[in-house]
Amino acid sequence: MLPLYRLEDSIAVVIDIFRATSSICYGIHNGAKAIIPVSTVEECLSYQHKGHLLAAERNGMVVEGFDFGNSPFSYSADKVSDQTIVLTTTNGTRSIELSRRAKKIVIGSFLNLSSLCSWLKQQGEPVLLVCAGWKGNFSLEDTLFAGAVVEKLQEEFLVEDDSAVAAMDLYLRAKDDLRTYLRKSSHSERLKQLNIEEDIAFCLRIDQVDTIPVLDGNSLVKMVWK
Amino acid sequence: MLPLYRLEDSIAVVIDIFRATSSICYGIHNGAKAIIPVSTVEECLSYQHKGHLLAAERNGMVVEGFDFGNSPFSYSADKVSDQTIVLTTTNGTRSIELSRRAKKIVIGSFLNLSSLCSWLKQQGEPVLLVCAGWKGNFSLEDTLFAGAVVEKLQEEFLVEDDSAVAAMDLYLRAKDDLRTYLRKSSHSERLKQLNIEEDIAFCLRIDQVDTIPVLDGNSLVKMVWK
Repeated sequence: MLPLYRLEDSIAVVIDIFRATSSICYGIHNGAKAIIPVSTVEECLSYQHKGHLLAAERNGMVVEGFDFGNSPFSYSADKVSDQTIVLTTTNGTRSIELSRRAKKIVIGSFLNLSSLCSWLKQQGEPVLLVCAGWKGNFSLEDTLFAGAVVEKLQEEFLVEDDSAVAAMDLYLRAKDDLRTYLRKSSHSERLKQLNIEEDIAFCLRIDQVDTIPVLDGNSLVKMVWK
Repeated sequence: MLPLYRLEDSIAVVIDIFRATSSICYGIHNGAKAIIPVSTVEECLSYQHKGHLLAAERNGMVVEGFDFGNSPFSYSADKVSDQTIVLTTTNGTRSIELSRRAKKIVIGSFLNLSSLCSWLKQQGEPVLLVCAGWKGNFSLEDTLFAGAVVEKLQEEFLVEDDSAVAAMDLYLRAKDDLRTYLRKSSHSERLKQLNIEEDIAFCLRIDQVDTIPVLDGNSLVKMVWK
């Protein structure tokens, strides 16, 4: 649905909870200098021999020959501090590409929910919540996060889209136990087969970091604010 | 999202609650011989002088010079019995066009909910719920109806898509008072300005008819079943 919105006037919040945007938040928080999102595995490979870490995920798995994929546990301080990471994922980096014309692009996840919302309130600009989904399809966890943002912003913002109303209601229904609620989703089945239960539990932890990654040129970097 | 699904294998249920598919169900139930959905106002006009009723709606209003638009009250027995109607609407007829490759196309609305679901259960075929939305966007009332269908079918069917899970949960939250729930939607504001409160109330009435309109060639006609 992205092309229907006036991107140019909005702050785009890119959301790919399992796992790209959660890992980006965690990695930038843990001192990564920058994360460069790229669309293709080939583009990622073109950054070889420049001292960068190369991360590539396709269909939920690390692409062979790469340092790592998009598990948040690969983005701990001991691995990423002071490093520049080049990252391509199945859905998340594509959503960043699609949002390029936005006024500003920031990265959202449950890990930085409250900080993100505080910052959005300060800006007073239209906000567009860009749910990456899975290969272009609806995904429940991204919708739940969008709903969490709508809940936090609804008093200050005018909610213009019915999907935002619906997302908030789903979040209100699920918020007391996100993990259990998400077991109903088909995505959950797919993720279970990948054996990443710990990643999922981690990505659903709320307010673990106060970092907001923001796109600066071609790189996601730590936003300076407050 | 339509192109992502395997239409060819599925029964497509086209849903445009306010008001196209509600009016189609009501009109066919009231004895209309056929309703011919067409994409453009021009195409609709090309059926002049053939003894058909011409119905055209754009942006919620009857297009000037046409017999009527898509208010269900225009589809009462005294107006449509034994008539053939040529209909073009902003969203509903476009969704029928987009679903053309489906195995079969039927029309759903709250008015024929239970009959539709009984028939779908008998078929044992994959079902694709095609929400027309508003100009390509998500719409709450179409999603709620899709959720109502999922609720009725869930025991016999495997729910494959997360959006179906989400739709059902929204429906369960809203079902006791659909009208009140829908007042939250932006669509509701737009509809209020059109002064069609009575149409809306009518379109939310459940199980008023047992008729299922089905596409036969280029015409929607009454399905013979049971």
